[in-house]
Amino acid sequence: MRLFDRFRQGEMRLSRVEAFSDGVFAIVVTLLVLELKVPELKDHASVSELAHQLVELMPKFLSWLISFIIVCKFWLNHHHVLALARHANYAMVWLNSIFLMGQSFIPFPTALMGEYHDNHLAVSFFGCVFAVNTLLFIALNSYIVRNLIKPELAPLQDPHGTLKAMVGPASYLVGAAAAWFSIPAAFVVYALTPLFYITPPKVHGVGAQARPRTTE
Amino acid sequence: MRLFDRFRQGEMRLSRVEAFSDGVFAIVVTLLVLELKVPELKDHASVSELAHQLVELMPKFLSWLISFIIVCKFWLNHHHVLALARHANYAMVWLNSIFLMGQSFIPFPTALMGEYHDNHLAVSFFGCVFAVNTLLFIALNSYIVRNLIKPELAPLQDPHGTLKAMVGPASYLVGAAAAWFSIPAAFVVYALTPLFYITPPKVHGVGAQARPRTTE
Amino acid sequence: MRLFDRFRQGEMRLSRVEAFSDGVFAIVVTLLVLELKVPELKDHASVSELAHQLVELMPKFLSWLISFIIVCKFWLNHHHVLALARHANYAMVWLNSIFLMGQSFIPFPTALMGEYHDNHLAVSFFGCVFAVNTLLFIALNSYIVRNLIKPELAPLQDPHGTLKAMVGPASYLVGAAAAWFSIPAAFVVYALTPLFYITPPKVHGVGAQARPRTTE
Amino acid sequence: MRLFDRFRQGEMRLSRVEAFSDGVFAIVVTLLVLELKVPELKDHASVSELAHQLVELMPKFLSWLISFIIVCKFWLNHHHVLALARHANYAMVWLNSIFLMGQSFIPFPTALMGEYHDNHLAVSFFGCVFAVNTLLFIALNSYIVRNLIKPELAPLQDPHGTLKAMVGPASYLVGAAAAWFSIPAAFVVYALTPLFYITPPKVHGVGAQARPRTTE
Repeated sequence: MRLFDRFRQGEMRLSRVEAFSDGVFAIVVTLLVLELKVPELKDHASVSELAHQLVELMPKFLSWLISFIIVCKFWLNHHHVLALARHANYAMVWLNSIFLMGQSFIPFPTALMGEYHDNHLAVSFFGCVFAVNTLLFIALNSYIVRNLIKPELAPLQDPHGTLKAMVGPASYLVGAAAAWFSIPAAFVVYALTPLFYITPPKVHGVGAQARPRTTE
Repeated sequence: MRLFDRFRQGEMRLSRVEAFSDGVFAIVVTLLVLELKVPELKDHASVSELAHQLVELMPKFLSWLISFIIVCKFWLNHHHVLALARHANYAMVWLNSIFLMGQSFIPFPTALMGEYHDNHLAVSFFGCVFAVNTLLFIALNSYIVRNLIKPELAPLQDPHGTLKAMVGPASYLVGAAAAWFSIPAAFVVYALTPLFYITPPKVHGVGAQARPRTTE
Repeated sequence: MRLFDRFRQGEMRLSRVEAFSDGVFAIVVTLLVLELKVPELKDHASVSELAHQLVELMPKFLSWLISFIIVCKFWLNHHHVLALARHANYAMVWLNSIFLMGQSFIPFPTALMGEYHDNHLAVSFFGCVFAVNTLLFIALNSYIVRNLIKPELAPLQDPHGTLKAMVGPASYLVGAAAAWFSIPAAFVVYALTPLFYITPPKVHGVGAQARPRTTE
Repeated sequence: MRLFDRFRQGEMRLSRVEAFSDGVFAIVVTLLVLELKVPELKDHASVSELAHQLVELMPKFLSWLISFIIVCKFWLNHHHVLALARHANYAMVWLNSIFLMGQSFIPFPTALMGEYHDNHLAVSFFGCVFAVNTLLFIALNSYIVRNLIKPELAPLQDPHGTLKAMVGPASYLVGAAAAWFSIPAAFVVYALTPLFYITPPKVHGVGAQARPRTTE
């Protein structure tokens, strides 16, 4: 009880929450490329050997591409959700931190799937991690919509938004299950899932959600 | 004397101190995951071998998790303390830089404890580093409260705040001592310690500490 | 159709787009140096062996230098283009994200060319990557100029700007072709190409493009 | 001629220059720790072996410490100098980028000196790199003071400031020379040199240089 009360306290500025989050997002997407390691060649000048090695890297390129797009999609939706809040409190900051913990973990399953793209577990693990990440985002989203939303934006929110958002985790889990039968099918599901939220959900008053902050 | 005078000079904007600090915090938490290296498998497609290797990584996951939470806790309290200051001076900037040096060091003891979780010294070293980090934060906190606090916030500060904050370093040192007898006990202490300051300390006027900056 | 409409929605603040982009740029230029690995010496104290190894690193230094300058040039032009926009929408955010994906990829071809500077494919690949990156920038630029430009800046834009900008990708492709005949020639072309856009294009009213945002 | 004119153009906002610079500084100081690699132990649980290995890491700790302090010192002085400027132009942005290139290079000589602390060349190289970095900073500083300074701050600048600042590069070169005779002497010189500019130079009107920007 008293602990919950403490979390509801703390009227904090959103600007540092955004700065910290943007930093984490920017680093996560940029670190992803570190898994694309320069291949070792026996003959340094051999074009055919390098060409062969670059083709071998294709699954890693693909993992990198999918993860990059997904993290950008999270960033865009995160941006959208934080713009709904009138301020931050401690509970929101911690939900945000745990969400960012999930984001910062992404390079690991990405590298794992890139390295062992023929391993059912590695490919399935990727989908599970992204399902959890989407759930963490939904938790942050719901908390802000229920507790911190700007009064003028509250009536514009879709009351079934949280339920509809569950399509994301469900889709990743479908991919994670598919990985045990067909790895290419899992890749396709993972690549298509971010398209559900490639733009934040529409609101009843078009464009209205962001307008109050456009003129800073 | 003259040196001390120079340090007290320099009315600087807080915004770049915050930007630099947020950058360091964001990078530290994101670099932590680089220690979670993709395991090497003899049979790339073997699910059981990968499952076994992922279970072997559990101590590294746990170290990563504990460090992530602790750094987020530092970030939140750092945010709180900087909001108390009316401006920055050189002494504060250097105390902040030394504090950030401690933060940027965190990936090393985290990796050490993750790698050698059965080594008493590695686990104890982790606690000592976090005790020092907490002391560096207390030094920054105390300097700001005594020298740079906004006049309207000064009466709201707990006069015994610094003393009470010592529970943090003391707890980490208890964990560091426990590591020599029981490594699981040390992990438990390390995981519980950040809960002391999971939210910044309450002030006498609830929520008052942050309000003056909410409307930038 | 409906998808395109969704992309045109979303009046978003430019400040977080800039913060995310600046983060990615800053990390990309700083990660480049990680490819300059400390050489392994048989005799740790041997000056001549270390001197020899540092000379061996010259191609890596050169790759690092060229990539650093090019990324800074992209950053400067990106800064210029975002200052033209009155706000961000989802289409622009995604064009920006795909452009940043290209930027974050840069450490890979840089490391590849640094490691295998005598391999025609590695050197040619470098040019191709930068040609694609420049095309991605041109796409972002064109979209902003056609859809999001501030009304007062629209008449100052060069109507042939996009065509003229094609000199960049063309020049990188010349370098990529040259790499198959003369590797030093390719290095020279790569080093000279960023000079085309070392400053953003002149506008008809000198300095006018940035003035509206100078006083924030 | 025409090229120089182009560089003098471009009234740009300082805020993105600062954001990019702060990002680079933050990443450089945080990447430094990556050179502190977890030692390999034959007996994972051996306290004495780990203790021995940690003592062996002392030169790396020391290199890390010195570089961290120096980069923070650069950050503080950079902060001070940018606050003098009324806006940015292309010449300043490029001087700043080249300065940041020098900063982003710092992890390499730091790692080299940490690894081969008994190698005269490695220790001397460290000093030369920091001498060049300080010269790059002086170039940026001089350009801003001569071309972009706020009119009200111009009379407060020390007319011999650039000359006095040369004590920095000179001191690093003394250290670089000392490295060929006594490596500990070089370490001492490197550790003491940042103290010259541990705070930005005093101005005639105390604290006046920053005051105009304190109230943003």
